[in-house]
Amino acid sequence: MVQSPAPALAPATVFDWLDEAAELRAEAGLTRTLRSRPADDPVVDLASNDYLGLVHHPAVTRAAADAALRWGGGSTGSRLVTGTTELHTELERELAEFTGFEAALVFSSGYAANLAALTALTDPDTLIVSDAYNHASLIDGCRLSRSDVHRAPHADPDAVADVLRTRTHRRALVVSDTVFSVDGNAAPLTGLSAAARAHGAALLVDDAHGLGVLGPGGAGAPAAAGLAGEPDVVATVTLSKSLGSQGGAVLGPRRVIRHLTETARTFIFDTGLAPAAVGAALGALRLLRAEPHRADRAREVARTLAARLTAAGLHASTPDAAVVSVRTPGPEAAVRWAADCRTAGLAVGCFRPPSVPDGISRLRLTARGDLTDQQITHAVDIITATAPTP
Amino acid sequence: MVQSPAPALAPATVFDWLDEAAELRAEAGLTRTLRSRPADDPVVDLASNDYLGLVHHPAVTRAAADAALRWGGGSTGSRLVTGTTELHTELERELAEFTGFEAALVFSSGYAANLAALTALTDPDTLIVSDAYNHASLIDGCRLSRSDVHRAPHADPDAVADVLRTRTHRRALVVSDTVFSVDGNAAPLTGLSAAARAHGAALLVDDAHGLGVLGPGGAGAPAAAGLAGEPDVVATVTLSKSLGSQGGAVLGPRRVIRHLTETARTFIFDTGLAPAAVGAALGALRLLRAEPHRADRAREVARTLAARLTAAGLHASTPDAAVVSVRTPGPEAAVRWAADCRTAGLAVGCFRPPSVPDGISRLRLTARGDLTDQQITHAVDIITATAPTP
Ligand SMILES: Cc1ncc(COP(=O)(O)O)c(C=O)c1O
Ligand SMILES: Cc1ncc(COP(=O)(O)O)c(C=O)c1O
Repeated sequence: MVQSPAPALAPATVFDWLDEAAELRAEAGLTRTLRSRPADDPVVDLASNDYLGLVHHPAVTRAAADAALRWGGGSTGSRLVTGTTELHTELERELAEFTGFEAALVFSSGYAANLAALTALTDPDTLIVSDAYNHASLIDGCRLSRSDVHRAPHADPDAVADVLRTRTHRRALVVSDTVFSVDGNAAPLTGLSAAARAHGAALLVDDAHGLGVLGPGGAGAPAAAGLAGEPDVVATVTLSKSLGSQGGAVLGPRRVIRHLTETARTFIFDTGLAPAAVGAALGALRLLRAEPHRADRAREVARTLAARLTAAGLHASTPDAAVVSVRTPGPEAAVRWAADCRTAGLAVGCFRPPSVPDGISRLRLTARGDLTDQQITHAVDIITATAPTP
Repeated sequence: MVQSPAPALAPATVFDWLDEAAELRAEAGLTRTLRSRPADDPVVDLASNDYLGLVHHPAVTRAAADAALRWGGGSTGSRLVTGTTELHTELERELAEFTGFEAALVFSSGYAANLAALTALTDPDTLIVSDAYNHASLIDGCRLSRSDVHRAPHADPDAVADVLRTRTHRRALVVSDTVFSVDGNAAPLTGLSAAARAHGAALLVDDAHGLGVLGPGGAGAPAAAGLAGEPDVVATVTLSKSLGSQGGAVLGPRRVIRHLTETARTFIFDTGLAPAAVGAALGALRLLRAEPHRADRAREVARTLAARLTAAGLHASTPDAAVVSVRTPGPEAAVRWAADCRTAGLAVGCFRPPSVPDGISRLRLTARGDLTDQQITHAVDIITATAPTP
């Protein structure tokens, strides 16, 4: 009898390799641990993506609570079966109106929205030109697309045009974040659109960090660039940042939205967004439309924060939206710096490889639109006082 | 000057192909449209995945509302940055306890949980053996894994063992739904586990339709099969079906959960589940633990429903959990039948290609545990009265 070539592993040892992987991460200073926060966390929060400071606003939390009480704890099924309530439809209508697109389709997350757009709008005969610094969800969407994916140098429309020029594929799609989440810099949307148009390509932009911050009243980066509602432009957004909720959406021409409704796997095979999240996003959206200065204030806070940190001798990014990053000497220094800030009462983000495309570890600061000048001063004092000596 | 080979498409025509694709779908009878339901929909619902009828239970909706009011409209960031509240940790502890696993990790959806488990626990030197009827999210996870994926015949442990016997890869993973969502039939978990163990493979099961329905008090299919808490077994669940909320979780040995926490892309790069959804799931879980008969009742309703439909001459599936399917002559007949049921006051699911792995269109009925005998009789009457004549 021939012996089976399979290793005769005992069940208890099947996952031994995970411990070895954990040790390698520890040696590289890349261990990650979950910290659970209490409801009454006393620290000043510059780590969240709550750009407009709406996550605890009564207009948002009350709308979430009311939606749960009226529509139930969950949506009960796929959007195509039982998972679409009238509240979902209202949110889609108001999102499209606000951002300037023809139509919108809501997903359970921004991640799912990106997977949907990238897989449903492409095929094996499509060339995708994707910015090198794009978000993980866009990258995963590219991988799932079965298309020919070309990674283009960061924020470089000429390079995109060069790739498109070589195109032999039936279709092409240019893909970029509008605001890159690590440094908070904006993509050259006008240039990308021109490059795409010169070569018959569609443009897909992820406005996760632009919605609520950029454009007139926070209508987003596509609106700011005059691209909202264009027939060859599709945008994705999250409801989990400026809108203080959870979920995502795809915005675009009506035929794109219909196509996604009927074919996108992360739409068809996923439970619809929970009513509470739909309600919270609607509450935030209506508040922002009533008080459009909130978007301006977030950008102003970012500029102030960056200027003061730079004046203090730190290596801060120049913010195009509401994110400011500060470079650190390495991943361990980043972790220590963030921990020291926390001890002093300030929560900051800490981005290390592989979450940073260029390998440079950073503190990441959110310029929440509801920060007071006093809080900004306090934050800058803590960050500079705890900075690692070079 | 050399002319660019790229087609000179006008921006307005870039998405013309979507209209052609829509026409092809229409010709094949596969058009899908969204119907948005009102809060006070008077129909009897056999279409949702609300298996225990908890989605409107005050213990669930009140918990959702309270969580939103206390913790905010959203979780504000990645679970690793600001997106983990003490409520998330409570849910993870109670989910692990209830299902019998060492630890749990909550995701924004069951879809995201499946993508995480499949990508983080595999590599290019892994053989994945995946049931032919697995859910779309498992299939997408396989695609993202970069592993060598082998599709095994449906519910066939011997076939799985045959594939594993040829293994030359360093690692192997057997992947299956526990309850297949279309027909409601259970996977042969004991056989799959034996096959995996004989060849040093790990076992990953998606218990989306088992949690709350199968096992002692609804603890799930792994508990029912004596596999919960085993060192080589990982399960995923959704919070969006029996638990009446939204979200998903991975359950498994502590080292698996730590590995996912530190490396899974849909964990690291996705916003944490909204507090309201965490609260709703916790509320449902606690209710189920206090009233374990709810799980038995869902299975009993399913058996009754299937028996009565079969007695009426229809081709109903034999339910292992809380799903009953009824075969239809084709996709158009399925759509018409479901529409006739709705007109008569009954909502039923309608599954057509490509949502059915075998190409056979079906009505899909959820045996909600809170259905009364009178409602069951009413439902059977409507389904038989509207059945297409063969
Ligand atoms: C640029 C970008 N796109 C998409 C996402 C995913 O959105 P969500 O968290 O709503 O899934 C994020 C962050 O979470 C992001 O930063
Ligand atoms: C078997 C199975 N796995 C996973 C999922 C995805 O779960 P969720 O809807 O929570 O993303 C579903 C259905 O939605 C399912 O039926």
